[in-house]
Amino acid sequence: MKHYLDITAIDHVQSWIDQALQLKVDPFQFESLGKKRTLCMLFFNPSLRTRLSTQKAAMNLGMQVMVMNFGSEGWQLEFEDGSIMDAGKAEHIKEAAAVVSQYCDILAIRAFASLTDREQDEAELVLNSFKKYATVPIVNMESATAHPLQALADAITITEFKKVERPKVVLSWAPHPKALPHAVANSFVKMMQLQNVNLVITHPEGYELDPAITKDMSVEYDQQNAFKDADFVYVKNWSSYKNYGKVLSKDKNWMITQQKMQLTNNGKLMHCLPVRRNMVIEDAVLDSDNSIVIEQANNRTFAAQLVLKKLLGRYEN
Amino acid sequence: MKHYLDITAIDHVQSWIDQALQLKVDPFQFESLGKKRTLCMLFFNPSLRTRLSTQKAAMNLGMQVMVMNFGSEGWQLEFEDGSIMDAGKAEHIKEAAAVVSQYCDILAIRAFASLTDREQDEAELVLNSFKKYATVPIVNMESATAHPLQALADAITITEFKKVERPKVVLSWAPHPKALPHAVANSFVKMMQLQNVNLVITHPEGYELDPAITKDMSVEYDQQNAFKDADFVYVKNWSSYKNYGKVLSKDKNWMITQQKMQLTNNGKLMHCLPVRRNMVIEDAVLDSDNSIVIEQANNRTFAAQLVLKKLLGRYEN
Amino acid sequence: MKHYLDITAIDHVQSWIDQALQLKVDPFQFESLGKKRTLCMLFFNPSLRTRLSTQKAAMNLGMQVMVMNFGSEGWQLEFEDGSIMDAGKAEHIKEAAAVVSQYCDILAIRAFASLTDREQDEAELVLNSFKKYATVPIVNMESATAHPLQALADAITITEFKKVERPKVVLSWAPHPKALPHAVANSFVKMMQLQNVNLVITHPEGYELDPAITKDMSVEYDQQNAFKDADFVYVKNWSSYKNYGKVLSKDKNWMITQQKMQLTNNGKLMHCLPVRRNMVIEDAVLDSDNSIVIEQANNRTFAAQLVLKKLLGRYEN
Repeated sequence: MKHYLDITAIDHVQSWIDQALQLKVDPFQFESLGKKRTLCMLFFNPSLRTRLSTQKAAMNLGMQVMVMNFGSEGWQLEFEDGSIMDAGKAEHIKEAAAVVSQYCDILAIRAFASLTDREQDEAELVLNSFKKYATVPIVNMESATAHPLQALADAITITEFKKVERPKVVLSWAPHPKALPHAVANSFVKMMQLQNVNLVITHPEGYELDPAITKDMSVEYDQQNAFKDADFVYVKNWSSYKNYGKVLSKDKNWMITQQKMQLTNNGKLMHCLPVRRNMVIEDAVLDSDNSIVIEQANNRTFAAQLVLKKLLGRYEN
Repeated sequence: MKHYLDITAIDHVQSWIDQALQLKVDPFQFESLGKKRTLCMLFFNPSLRTRLSTQKAAMNLGMQVMVMNFGSEGWQLEFEDGSIMDAGKAEHIKEAAAVVSQYCDILAIRAFASLTDREQDEAELVLNSFKKYATVPIVNMESATAHPLQALADAITITEFKKVERPKVVLSWAPHPKALPHAVANSFVKMMQLQNVNLVITHPEGYELDPAITKDMSVEYDQQNAFKDADFVYVKNWSSYKNYGKVLSKDKNWMITQQKMQLTNNGKLMHCLPVRRNMVIEDAVLDSDNSIVIEQANNRTFAAQLVLKKLLGRYEN
Repeated sequence: MKHYLDITAIDHVQSWIDQALQLKVDPFQFESLGKKRTLCMLFFNPSLRTRLSTQKAAMNLGMQVMVMNFGSEGWQLEFEDGSIMDAGKAEHIKEAAAVVSQYCDILAIRAFASLTDREQDEAELVLNSFKKYATVPIVNMESATAHPLQALADAITITEFKKVERPKVVLSWAPHPKALPHAVANSFVKMMQLQNVNLVITHPEGYELDPAITKDMSVEYDQQNAFKDADFVYVKNWSSYKNYGKVLSKDKNWMITQQKMQLTNNGKLMHCLPVRRNMVIEDAVLDSDNSIVIEQANNRTFAAQLVLKKLLGRYEN
């Protein structure tokens, strides 16, 4: 593996999950692996879980960590080739990526979708520019279209909590006041397609995800139908893909309630967080024993640690 | 000790002071105690001394440190139970505290008073919410009503500099252009009540501190009378408590001057810093040999280090 | 050496360059030198290279690092003696510098020129105030008039790439949309004066640098003439010194092009970065094999590491 930009970087997903669970048993077992190695984390957007869990993961491996909020602490970057830089942007990605690569051994980047220009978002301009011009491995800490550290943590969590060989996993859209990206949903769907699960996607009409990702999967537009006998309910809001970045509905009838959860097979509730209570999911569900959102967030550390450990492999003799 | 939220967490104050002074002699004597342990510092407000001294204290103990400015780097938090989160706040404290607890071993938090709503400030919403939902020890890096790391450093400093068994310690209000919280004054008064000192409080009428803290202490409204024969003058501005958060006076006659210091028993000047020169205290006093504000700030490291060391105790075998 | 404020702190420049190149061969050879030592980096301005390379340099030496963005994370500082601090500034440099000195072993500071008041910029108020009131060594991470870490990296880079005993080095002004400081150009000129090079400075009339720095050097106002047979072309924009801080020209004819580079002796292109492409230097030049701007940025780590190593010397037994 050269980079961890998408879950396609994972060769044997079940083996990865097993390795991550091994790391969780003793997070410091490889603490000399990262000695003299530095992770540089560049944030173009806010972050809580990713910021802290990735940092913790690196430290567990004995790495040094440098964290930089690009917008406020550095220079505005230009990503277009051939542009005449006579306005606000002070540095080109060509220099920035090549230079930063010299100060660290692994580079982790968060750069959200604009939600205004689908083509540009799908081109993954920031992430792919770093990939192109950096000389060290890149880790995606959520890009315009993918959040593969989250998806790996999700798969680990489902493995930990599943009670049947092939659980029913429902990905349910839920209402939100703001337009949100598709990254988490995209990576979750791709990850579930690699797992032995019965994946059902439910959302209002108009909220169909990128068909290149959902492929031939049919959508269950009736949320209650979808929830029936579910072992896991994975909740997430996203904006429209077709009507790119638009909020078509804030219909509260799509909020996740205890009543709906009772349709499931004592199903576990998952969400990547942050979650808006009583808008996306009601208190009673988040506060119930079936919510595993905190355990899911905990697995972010071990997902990141496994990815960093694998990328450090290139530096081993 | 489960948390360090207030100085009531201190069991034997004189023993703590002695231990802190022992740490000061050789700050690295416990440098293996914090190995594999992580301190996460969350700031909801600016900080210089607390930010750097607490970080240094943790590193002296061999800990890893993660620093996060919550406002700019993360998500806006909701603290109210049962609220419908359909506006600006993206994450509830319930999730944030539980999640962050999983990425660290000790959580330190700075969250100032609003000074607009006394009841809310006294409820210590931020600090107590973290206490309620976090699963690791919490350290108060200045909350709405208390600054116990500062008060411990103050007590250490007085022990170092006192020349008599029972020194006279004057807490003097001084003018300031802005409305300031009561946290430092509160914790100082509580700490002095535990010490063998003659504590005298002086301030203009209307600036009485919370009577639940000052208890039956009388106030000396004549500053010059208060200063007579003082061994220590502890200077601090605060806004009105009764007329909550209001600036009732900027009377320059209350500024600390050399002339007033000459009324003391060659008294030492203390201030928690930052201090506005020639507004709160005149240059001549701050620049005199009797100012110990820099030494006092130095003790912040050892106060924090002792608190962290004690909290790390729970992880020892 | 007590501080590293300017390149005048360097005693034997060639020996420093040799030592830095030795560090580059094995950056971790002194990794126990900085154990229990802390570098505190204070930024009053944005930074990418300096932020990351200096941090990396310190970690290579085994030091702990604390990074603080003064403006957003701390208090606004007052630098004037005797001022009445009744407005926005909460803390005086006297306290800030003395206090921070107690939490670290070396203090590094970035504080750019105002470009509005030449006298004040030349007084180096921020840097010199820290020097005056701090009790630990100070490292200049670019001040109003000097960038000595950059100049040391520049000298290292020229030593690495030069093919003749006494190369011709051209410092060329180039156009830029904004008014930029003189710090980089100043330190580069001073550094070249210490080297066995033929230094030629070229810029439009009105852009003469501080004569106290350029001394009796004549200026070549014809850029193409200047470029003839150059072994190195060092590109930098700066605002007018005489007409202090003003942009007198954005003349695109001064942009660095391949055509101009062909006048050189297969000359290497240098720039401190960030660089605005197709405004300061055209793509073809930056993307050519003769551009060594990335290698130059890499040497920032070893320049900083050497400076820190020398300053740590004071703590050795």
